[in-house]
Amino acid sequence: MKNIKQMNGLTLRNLTGIAIAGTGTAFPAGGRWIDNATIHRMIFGDEWQQPMAAKNLDPLYYEQQLGFSKRFWVHTPGTAIVHDELTSADLMTEAARHAIEDSGINKEDIDFVIAVTITSPRYSTSMGPYVSGRLGIHAPSMEMKSGCASNIFSLTLAAQLIQNGAKNVLITCGETNTKVLKMTSRMAYAGGDAGAAVVVSKAGAEKGIMAGYLNSNGSFSGHMGVPGLLPPNQQDIDEEKYYLEYSDAAEDFLNEAWTTTPQLLYKATGLTAGDIDCLIPHQVHKKRTQYAANAAGVPMEKTIDIIHEYANCGSASLLLALDHAKKRGALEHGKKLMLLAAGGGISWGGLILTT
Amino acid sequence: MKNIKQMNGLTLRNLTGIAIAGTGTAFPAGGRWIDNATIHRMIFGDEWQQPMAAKNLDPLYYEQQLGFSKRFWVHTPGTAIVHDELTSADLMTEAARHAIEDSGINKEDIDFVIAVTITSPRYSTSMGPYVSGRLGIHAPSMEMKSGCASNIFSLTLAAQLIQNGAKNVLITCGETNTKVLKMTSRMAYAGGDAGAAVVVSKAGAEKGIMAGYLNSNGSFSGHMGVPGLLPPNQQDIDEEKYYLEYSDAAEDFLNEAWTTTPQLLYKATGLTAGDIDCLIPHQVHKKRTQYAANAAGVPMEKTIDIIHEYANCGSASLLLALDHAKKRGALEHGKKLMLLAAGGGISWGGLILTT
Repeated sequence: MKNIKQMNGLTLRNLTGIAIAGTGTAFPAGGRWIDNATIHRMIFGDEWQQPMAAKNLDPLYYEQQLGFSKRFWVHTPGTAIVHDELTSADLMTEAARHAIEDSGINKEDIDFVIAVTITSPRYSTSMGPYVSGRLGIHAPSMEMKSGCASNIFSLTLAAQLIQNGAKNVLITCGETNTKVLKMTSRMAYAGGDAGAAVVVSKAGAEKGIMAGYLNSNGSFSGHMGVPGLLPPNQQDIDEEKYYLEYSDAAEDFLNEAWTTTPQLLYKATGLTAGDIDCLIPHQVHKKRTQYAANAAGVPMEKTIDIIHEYANCGSASLLLALDHAKKRGALEHGKKLMLLAAGGGISWGGLILTT
Repeated sequence: MKNIKQMNGLTLRNLTGIAIAGTGTAFPAGGRWIDNATIHRMIFGDEWQQPMAAKNLDPLYYEQQLGFSKRFWVHTPGTAIVHDELTSADLMTEAARHAIEDSGINKEDIDFVIAVTITSPRYSTSMGPYVSGRLGIHAPSMEMKSGCASNIFSLTLAAQLIQNGAKNVLITCGETNTKVLKMTSRMAYAGGDAGAAVVVSKAGAEKGIMAGYLNSNGSFSGHMGVPGLLPPNQQDIDEEKYYLEYSDAAEDFLNEAWTTTPQLLYKATGLTAGDIDCLIPHQVHKKRTQYAANAAGVPMEKTIDIIHEYANCGSASLLLALDHAKKRGALEHGKKLMLLAAGGGISWGGLILTT
């Protein structure tokens, strides 16, 4: 395996003339916020204190060490998939509605739609047209994914489409991680479900992506993923193969990805850590966010840290965090934001955006 | 529902400075070429003449009317999915190897990978890094889809990435349609499996996509697709919901998509039908290819028609046809190609490429 420093990746410069016109999120009323005590109870029973102590598990560990406090679940991990539960398409649709409303743009003026998910509710069907159809948007659309870094990729694609004539690009992302998580103490606390969307629009040349950096390394594909074959088969259902499996084999590599990306972005833009007004990392867990802030040289008070509200929502986390940054005023005129993500694939990257 | 003429879509102009450096296809030795008589036998038994006649089915219909004569199958439609069969990832990997070899470019010089499939073998996992890992390519990568028009989209994305600094983009596509087809006379003859790939490279400003046109309409999502929910569930397996369902409801709309796209491309480029050296349509069936040629005003002798060899290979068909065009010499210096596709989504579009 190559060292990360030998993997040059792709640096995209001056994807400018674009702005974030609106953001939106979705946790519809049909869903449920789950706190840690509820999960303790689900795994260890109503009297969870005793069995957790017997297994040497600290009930406060998940909140104190990892920052997981509550999360939105459309599904109870480890139970059968049923037809009346919310899907990632529902979350995408709802988040898109809010982002369009927030942007003030008519949906008729959206001229490209990128749907992003690693937990699609359908085989074969592209979520691009599927979700656009529900929204009544008639525009070219596609589905794409590259793990939890998907939206670093999608934002750079949106910017390129706008540079080539699109006026408004909708990126909408939905994840239902709970449908591929087992109800174990390792996984259940970490995963959340969410929708998050953004409208990217044509803007003055001073605004946009100063530099984006993208990379992937497929060497670790076997260490992270759902091993069951598609289309579905009985054997893999019986053997519970449609659940996410994860090993720590890629941890060192992931740390290196989080460390090197900010430096590559500083080099590409000539900026330094002091120029960054807001750091928006993909939300894995509290320690990872602190790690990212440290690697970027940005203090935690300028870093979006929402893991305690939502846990890890897969590829939706980055756009959720962007929505929070916008609500906090971090997208006002002339700010400089750094977005960072790394995850399944392994795919990773980041970008610096002038608002 | 809107009339197609009210749906403007997105026209991308002057995605130039790029060329098709190499193409490749995959039908590995482990697979099987199936002729029509073999399918007659599978559906109606060894003495198929009698039962077909009793059902008023003409055994020559599929070849004479639709052009389906043989096709590559990795799987027998309607049978259970098993672990030792080829997957679309295998086909993508093999096709990519051939395309890279054909391009003469070192795999180390590929700086973006787009994996395309509507029949992925995995849930959640992006085929971009997955296939890149197998190929030993260390470059940013993603998976995308928008039905059978996916590669009109992917080619325009590749061109934009090259305009923004990438040197060589690999698009690799694999489809195993047989795994979602039932063994019925309507579906079994029509579907084939294939891998097809292309390396798009930086080139002189006179070469590239003069204009591309992209559009989608999600109104017909319910008329074409695999209705079973993902992740997989027992009920949908029991009810055989993981098979493609298709109605003719969108036929008129699809015809209009095939008709309007060439005219939009002529308008965007100032070219006329006489300027087109080679028409490369997505291969649905013989009549559709003739329809496309007629709509574009290009004679059949300048139109790639390979349906009799491969049947409909989903999103791979367009790149298969591009590979055939290259082998026929149609990509020599200074030629003008028109690529057209429409399919599931509905997504459709086209592009005019100067080689």
